[in-house]
Amino acid sequence: MNKHILVIPGDGIGPEVTQWGKAALEHIATTYNHNFTFDEALMGHAAIEATGNPLPDETLEKAKKSDAILFGAVGHAKYDNDPSLKVRPEQGLLKIRKELGLYANLRPILLFDELLHASSIKPTILKGTDILFFRELTGDVYFGEKTRSEDRATASDLMIYHKYEVERIAHKAYAAARQRSGKLCSVDKANVLESSRLWRETVQEISKQYPDVETTHMFIDNAAMQLIKDPKQFDVVLTANLFGDILTDEASQIAGSMGMLASASIGDGTGFFEPIHGSAHDITGKDLANPLASILSAALMLEISFGLKEEAKTLVNAVDKVLKEGFRTNDIADSTTNRYKVLGTKEMGKLVLK
Amino acid sequence: MNKHILVIPGDGIGPEVTQWGKAALEHIATTYNHNFTFDEALMGHAAIEATGNPLPDETLEKAKKSDAILFGAVGHAKYDNDPSLKVRPEQGLLKIRKELGLYANLRPILLFDELLHASSIKPTILKGTDILFFRELTGDVYFGEKTRSEDRATASDLMIYHKYEVERIAHKAYAAARQRSGKLCSVDKANVLESSRLWRETVQEISKQYPDVETTHMFIDNAAMQLIKDPKQFDVVLTANLFGDILTDEASQIAGSMGMLASASIGDGTGFFEPIHGSAHDITGKDLANPLASILSAALMLEISFGLKEEAKTLVNAVDKVLKEGFRTNDIADSTTNRYKVLGTKEMGKLVLK
Ligand SMILES: CC(C)[C@H](C(=O)O)[C@@H](O)C(=O)O
Ligand SMILES: CC(C)[C@H](C(=O)O)[C@@H](O)C(=O)O
Repeated sequence: MNKHILVIPGDGIGPEVTQWGKAALEHIATTYNHNFTFDEALMGHAAIEATGNPLPDETLEKAKKSDAILFGAVGHAKYDNDPSLKVRPEQGLLKIRKELGLYANLRPILLFDELLHASSIKPTILKGTDILFFRELTGDVYFGEKTRSEDRATASDLMIYHKYEVERIAHKAYAAARQRSGKLCSVDKANVLESSRLWRETVQEISKQYPDVETTHMFIDNAAMQLIKDPKQFDVVLTANLFGDILTDEASQIAGSMGMLASASIGDGTGFFEPIHGSAHDITGKDLANPLASILSAALMLEISFGLKEEAKTLVNAVDKVLKEGFRTNDIADSTTNRYKVLGTKEMGKLVLK
Repeated sequence: MNKHILVIPGDGIGPEVTQWGKAALEHIATTYNHNFTFDEALMGHAAIEATGNPLPDETLEKAKKSDAILFGAVGHAKYDNDPSLKVRPEQGLLKIRKELGLYANLRPILLFDELLHASSIKPTILKGTDILFFRELTGDVYFGEKTRSEDRATASDLMIYHKYEVERIAHKAYAAARQRSGKLCSVDKANVLESSRLWRETVQEISKQYPDVETTHMFIDNAAMQLIKDPKQFDVVLTANLFGDILTDEASQIAGSMGMLASASIGDGTGFFEPIHGSAHDITGKDLANPLASILSAALMLEISFGLKEEAKTLVNAVDKVLKEGFRTNDIADSTTNRYKVLGTKEMGKLVLK
């Protein structure tokens, strides 16, 4: 198989971890006789420094021409501390989502048995959890109009949804629910928000086309609670951009650490694959970051964009094996025991590839 | 002390639990020789059924004339299933918050040692947690303009903040932080939202007036994760209306159950006290609801609105004692052991008052 892959390392720990996702793809290419070619491009703070633009045209061009994108993270403490800065790293990520039409963000909460004890949640509560989030990614308060009054004392963001935006991601989520246990929970705040009422009505309508899937609706506040109280009750969770941002980060605790979770953003064109952890300025350059989410992002790319199930499985199994052998990065090591061998980013990356 | 208290039982389990909060106040009045008079009023679905209006003028009149309000819950499955209904129970609650200027919602995450094991989170992670949430309550996407296009295919809610709204609650939160461990964490989404950037700038400004308080800022997605990963890192948490709604429900798992948590809504006038659990249609009328949050809401009223610290402590101690003796309602009973004596709402209420 011939595929052209764009790598966007981004900021913070992005470059450190993405090199291992890329190495995993190279390894798969060699082992399975595929021809993967790679290019690299800038985004986020790195791109602002080099070009003044968080998403340079060149990056967008390359992105559109590639078969899939492997991304790291964007963000920098400088902007977080100064909310008045106009040009911001995150704009690059938001713009590429919009430009490539990446309206569905899939976040599987994959639970490695070995990490059952790494979570702050009780193993008995977690065991058997298998959730697939569908987070809408190109609408909501993320992309609605923003205003700031002239005296700077009033600021607003428009939370807005169009029916077709809800429909297209709902169809994707229902299709996935059919392949899984046949349960879908849609999360909104329809008791307060008009955009959520549109969301709920639309999901109710679409649900009629999938009578074999059991649909439930839950308010976001309750969902944030139920997710820790009893995660096993969920299978496919469908939700809007902002609620999905919050719920999936929260759900990362179920998998033991954010450092373990990969995500796929898909739509009508090129797919985009990234760890769900952010740029993590505090551990950047210290060889402490967990490369497993980037490797698992590569696995998602193989499966979803290229349909290479076996190759994807090979990567997931390699991660599983390394965990079984007792190797851990700092974030998933259990500090109360010394049963584990704690490795840096590089050693962990190398080990998985072996 | 002479005080006039308005009781608004509301919908679902509201009436069942609120009668015990009221009984607790009566008990305190007798024991400590106070003169508490009571009135009752309708809100939510109950009020819609009786008058067509989720917040009848009469209720608002009575509310304004009272010294404090004890509230139950609003909501009904009928409206949740039909997002197109125009008149909705929650409008009553939102309107009374706005009309009484209840801009600060205080939610203490009070951890009873006895319930350390009732949570889905590991006791080692929880032990020592003591968080006080300040949730803004009269702004944000809750009260911004709502629109629905004529073809009904587009819907929006305006997420909006004015600087003075952030300032007044920030001052209240900082004052509390001073009395506590001197740490305040402000939660926003300033990397994406303009309203959050105003929020962050304003908190940064106000923080200069409280140099003795250590201020941190966290993004909501990260906060939702950190709250379960390591709740002990938080002391006072200050956040906007929507984010606060989500975070405080999530945090209720820390206390073992929503059924244990009380909240106080304060502002310029009459204080408003309520359990944070909702109307819980599924267990309504079954004598299964936990009356402790209503009793603890009464305790908050005594402390915050009336300055009756000792009386408040008496109620908290009574709850603690009953838990120590092994009594539980269904929601906080640990089904894996039969060490506990599981009681219904009424028995539990009576026991605490004894
Ligand atoms: C970096 C930020 C803009 C982004 C988001 O909020 O979508 C991130 O948190 C994510 O979840 O991908
Ligand atoms: C009932 C609902 C409108 C309300 C809210 O979202 O504020 C509730 O969830 C709460 O937290 O008090």
